[in-house]
Amino acid sequence: MKLSILGGGRWGVALSLHLGRLNHQVLVYDRNQDIVREINRGNHPYMKDIKLKGVEATTSLEDIEHYSDYVIIALPVQAIRGVIQSLDLSQKMVISASKGLEIGTYKRVSQIVREVHSSAQVFSLSGPSFASEVSKGLPTALVLAGEDTDQMRKIRDAFFSENFRIYLSTDIVGVELGGALKNVVAIACGISDGLGYGENARASLITRGLAEMVRIGVKLGAKRETFYGLSGMGDLFLTASSPQSRNRTFGFLIGKGKSAQMAFKEIGQVVEGAYTVRAVKKLSEELSIYAPISCAVYEVIIENKNIQEVVKSLLLRPPKEEFEVL
Amino acid sequence: MKLSILGGGRWGVALSLHLGRLNHQVLVYDRNQDIVREINRGNHPYMKDIKLKGVEATTSLEDIEHYSDYVIIALPVQAIRGVIQSLDLSQKMVISASKGLEIGTYKRVSQIVREVHSSAQVFSLSGPSFASEVSKGLPTALVLAGEDTDQMRKIRDAFFSENFRIYLSTDIVGVELGGALKNVVAIACGISDGLGYGENARASLITRGLAEMVRIGVKLGAKRETFYGLSGMGDLFLTASSPQSRNRTFGFLIGKGKSAQMAFKEIGQVVEGAYTVRAVKKLSEELSIYAPISCAVYEVIIENKNIQEVVKSLLLRPPKEEFEVL
Repeated sequence: MKLSILGGGRWGVALSLHLGRLNHQVLVYDRNQDIVREINRGNHPYMKDIKLKGVEATTSLEDIEHYSDYVIIALPVQAIRGVIQSLDLSQKMVISASKGLEIGTYKRVSQIVREVHSSAQVFSLSGPSFASEVSKGLPTALVLAGEDTDQMRKIRDAFFSENFRIYLSTDIVGVELGGALKNVVAIACGISDGLGYGENARASLITRGLAEMVRIGVKLGAKRETFYGLSGMGDLFLTASSPQSRNRTFGFLIGKGKSAQMAFKEIGQVVEGAYTVRAVKKLSEELSIYAPISCAVYEVIIENKNIQEVVKSLLLRPPKEEFEVL
Repeated sequence: MKLSILGGGRWGVALSLHLGRLNHQVLVYDRNQDIVREINRGNHPYMKDIKLKGVEATTSLEDIEHYSDYVIIALPVQAIRGVIQSLDLSQKMVISASKGLEIGTYKRVSQIVREVHSSAQVFSLSGPSFASEVSKGLPTALVLAGEDTDQMRKIRDAFFSENFRIYLSTDIVGVELGGALKNVVAIACGISDGLGYGENARASLITRGLAEMVRIGVKLGAKRETFYGLSGMGDLFLTASSPQSRNRTFGFLIGKGKSAQMAFKEIGQVVEGAYTVRAVKKLSEELSIYAPISCAVYEVIIENKNIQEVVKSLLLRPPKEEFEVL
């Protein structure tokens, strides 16, 4: 099978490597000529000692258009609209492997794709998946969501291997929201870790944070149970607890006393959760959703409020019965 | 308020320290004279630099009987029946802070207490709570479950502080099962970590493991949503991911190639999950519950099957739709 991938970043390359191992032919698009050159030499641009097989790369979107009916999106969310406006996806199966919401519009990736190419078929591939581990062939389990279940089974079978398991879901709203909203909770967990609050506190934040994600998701049309699966709690757990996670590290630096500006500079890459938190704040107000953890993150990183005071008011909320807020 | 605590282990002492800080008077029972002596000198038996306040200790169960109407159980589960058979709890409010199932009977703690003292009122306090962090006064959130909500509010208010939040639940079955079943999943995660499978694999195991816990719990009369709260997924996160966790460490040693016997020896303390997995295996067969992760743990640690083969057959299960097994 032939597949093309938009984005030669860590995740795009990890997926190309995985698909190459399964004897598929893969064409990666990236605007960066250095990355394209490395890939065409069979090198993994981010990991030495790993050789790509069956993978080519290009800086031309026209090449992508002619290569395959299957197009995987592995771009930063904020870059997607710009790229796909120059690429006809109307007859394609588009598999989004990107997580996050578009700044300003608060749209999910499948919404962006359909807005630009209304007749494209869009699927979302999401779940706990550090690119470095997929590159090494370590066991990973993901969810593929969409509407056309026959097509989904076909994609699943093409991607499936012993160490790359795929489960299917028809709740693309829930799958996409899980992948976006978890970044805000991961920032909160990073802040807590930076403040030295310990593992009990982090486990509670993850739990209560997932409850917030569920409340937001259900109001936006997602299914509750999707958040209890790989693309919700699985990905949340990974992102909120690992030092490998960018969003958690961003929060950690803030917990250690850095300003949001300093922390952004130190990370040097996109911190999706810092965009998503604006959407959550707006939604929680417009739709009256109880989201104290996300709102606390907003106060700290957007409004630059005093972190100790925000945490104190979070901890001093009046006691509730465990599930009255679910 | 006066409260007594059965068990001067790490968790009993952490709770006594917390309650002492809130100006309650606490009497700790332990059969070990050295621990009792240390506590009566104001020393924390497991942590230097921490002084107990308002806490006394005794080796006499008669002292406990006369001290207070509130008795907290913080004993290893397998020791509970023996201790409470020599102690009249019939007019007491009993708060179980112990997690696990009794060997052979597979009973939960509240069931053991009611079997011995049918008129005792029993509550369960559970959630993500390493004793060392509670001892240091780090933020912790727990669930208190029981039937008498007025009494529960009273207990919650007595225990509550800024850094020790309590949520209420009326699902004692779910709260107790969450605290017991998560240990089996934690062993599985430890095995995966020991085999070097990485963080993606662990996040998936936790997610699919929680789905197993839900399936078992619901069949046993628990509420599904309880497993998505602090006493379920919160405690699972903590236990399955932290190097502080005994059950995870036990699995880790096995993943590194040690036999179960060697791993037990190296831990040198009770590994609750190794008992609980027998109950899960039996229940999964008797009630036809799909529990592949727990059964794999059983095969590795009880039946001494080859770990690579067990993992391989787990990973090679035919693909499923994400939620058809929930």
